[in-house]
Amino acid sequence: MPTHDPKPVVAVLGGGQLGRMLGLAGVPMGVSFRFLDPSPGAGAAAVGALVVGTLGDPEAVAAVAAGADAVTYEWEGVPASVVRPLVAAGVAVWPPPDALEASQDRLAEKQLFESLGIPVSAFAPVDDAPSMATAHGAVGPRAVLKTRRGGYDGKGQIVIDESTDLDQAVGLLVPAGPLILEQFVDFDRELSIIAVRSRSGEIRCWPLVENRHRGGILRTSIAPAPDSARLQAAAEQAIGAIMERFDYVGVLTLELFQVGDRLLANEMAPRVHNSGHWTIEGAVTSQFENHIRAILGWPLGSTDPIGVSAMVNCIGALPDPATVLDVPGAHLHQYAKTPRPGRKVGHVTVVADDAADLENRLSRLRAALPADEG
Amino acid sequence: MPTHDPKPVVAVLGGGQLGRMLGLAGVPMGVSFRFLDPSPGAGAAAVGALVVGTLGDPEAVAAVAAGADAVTYEWEGVPASVVRPLVAAGVAVWPPPDALEASQDRLAEKQLFESLGIPVSAFAPVDDAPSMATAHGAVGPRAVLKTRRGGYDGKGQIVIDESTDLDQAVGLLVPAGPLILEQFVDFDRELSIIAVRSRSGEIRCWPLVENRHRGGILRTSIAPAPDSARLQAAAEQAIGAIMERFDYVGVLTLELFQVGDRLLANEMAPRVHNSGHWTIEGAVTSQFENHIRAILGWPLGSTDPIGVSAMVNCIGALPDPATVLDVPGAHLHQYAKTPRPGRKVGHVTVVADDAADLENRLSRLRAALPADEG
Repeated sequence: MPTHDPKPVVAVLGGGQLGRMLGLAGVPMGVSFRFLDPSPGAGAAAVGALVVGTLGDPEAVAAVAAGADAVTYEWEGVPASVVRPLVAAGVAVWPPPDALEASQDRLAEKQLFESLGIPVSAFAPVDDAPSMATAHGAVGPRAVLKTRRGGYDGKGQIVIDESTDLDQAVGLLVPAGPLILEQFVDFDRELSIIAVRSRSGEIRCWPLVENRHRGGILRTSIAPAPDSARLQAAAEQAIGAIMERFDYVGVLTLELFQVGDRLLANEMAPRVHNSGHWTIEGAVTSQFENHIRAILGWPLGSTDPIGVSAMVNCIGALPDPATVLDVPGAHLHQYAKTPRPGRKVGHVTVVADDAADLENRLSRLRAALPADEG
Repeated sequence: MPTHDPKPVVAVLGGGQLGRMLGLAGVPMGVSFRFLDPSPGAGAAAVGALVVGTLGDPEAVAAVAAGADAVTYEWEGVPASVVRPLVAAGVAVWPPPDALEASQDRLAEKQLFESLGIPVSAFAPVDDAPSMATAHGAVGPRAVLKTRRGGYDGKGQIVIDESTDLDQAVGLLVPAGPLILEQFVDFDRELSIIAVRSRSGEIRCWPLVENRHRGGILRTSIAPAPDSARLQAAAEQAIGAIMERFDYVGVLTLELFQVGDRLLANEMAPRVHNSGHWTIEGAVTSQFENHIRAILGWPLGSTDPIGVSAMVNCIGALPDPATVLDVPGAHLHQYAKTPRPGRKVGHVTVVADDAADLENRLSRLRAALPADEG
């Protein structure tokens, strides 16, 4: 009999497209998957067993985790309080719940970055009108007021300028909980870096990615980000420091603003990330495969890029496979989701040999995709 | 509503590793799978619905095919008589049953090659001792006597030389059905070419692959086959002629012997093939993805290689993921099969930038794999 576990089981909290792509990466390596998701139609069910239940329910989490070789999550909204008992019981839960918790609170996250010497824009906590006045004085006239918890895709945010009624802005968001005021960053572009850390402490980083948002939703990622080589070392140092702080295992994403030659940390996601989907075809090892390798204690694969890639999200409308696949170098990914306005239902990655070729293919791809509502 | 089918269903006759890898390629594109396999533990069940039943049972085949957008097979032993009624009923069955049938009979296959002007070694039918004497006179003293149907991995074959008792050899094989005597080919090496043809008639070929067998079982494939560029056109012409003859749709494999600068056709497989597994990581589009694209009427993807690849089968013993994945450029594929002597339970593909790097990685990989019984 072999000494190694021939059929490891991974339990994933969440069964959306990220879980689905984790499964697609792990099944070839002999890994079996169990997913916990509130929807009986969760897309990850195509590649593993689905347990229907809420991610905040300790009993459902315990059920899906029972006997698993590793437990991970594809959504950073999983309450840390739900996974900590698993850790206490000796279950391998990766990434660490402390990192999960830090990512759930924009204030804690920014304080973490600051404590590690990672540049961030000015910020201050806001709980009510008086603290808003103080924060506004410290952070400056142009700022963004955000809920500390739960916002995503641009929701739970108000841009503040000279014409904003501060009390009214606070009144609009405070019902959602404590807030943070962040200095408005007039950035050149948004970047992200994705890294993976193994159980033995090895860290590998994919190249910086340029992310283009519209309506608060990621539309396109270009990888490697053009003209980003000189920024790579600083980005790697920042994400490495975060990983070391938590004795992190698995994939971590750090979103950054580029201002001139400076990088400001915006937020982190303790999971595989939309801006890393290009790695499936555009890198030697994908973020999904390396996440599975890391949490199971296996060696990491190379994060080197293969050519240059662009990833375009399909939002609100399903792409026509025959049209998309006619674009040279295009790879189609559907999430088995019913289209709704603003909903990510798939993505397409195009890979090319050089930037000019990529731009050409990307133009063809855009013409092949249905117009989205953004 | 989109005019295209948003969730096509493919029914696959057979649910082994080939079906599993077809599913892994199709699920990202939004395809759902149903597999028919006699084993309730069939590995393809990880990526689709499994119907347990025999592939020769018309009722089981009709059940798995009901309502599918396309029906295909991962095993060329499926009786053509079982799939023809589906075609008559208007079901899209690809590759065509005529190609399936031709591949099941070594004599019909060789006659097909000959009729298309594709070079083959001398051959003659054998049904009994008298026809063996005639065949032996025509084909020459060194030959291989084979069953016309059902042999694989070197089974059902006897090598004939001057010392062989011809009557005894015929007596050993004739109980298995009619035979064929083929001239023994003192080949330099074994190659294969894999091609895909779309519903619109477009043909794309992957580069020639060098295949190394031991004990009648494929052990290693090198792709592209070293020093094979000058042979590529002849191989493409041969496989293209076969595809045109059948108005073929899907992936076809043609196994060849290289003798000097000549290629002799050995046999064909109307399906994705073990010698094409390297295409998952080593080509822009894998044989599995292009087979699904073809049978669903979608455009084909590029068959260009990415670097150079070697694929090593894992036979009779499960590899240790931690050891295998420590080899640079290694990609592990497990088939969810219980190891038995001689059974293919997985494969590993290593990709490298050049031949020297590949040789180095392949040596490391061989050291990382358990010794097999070959």
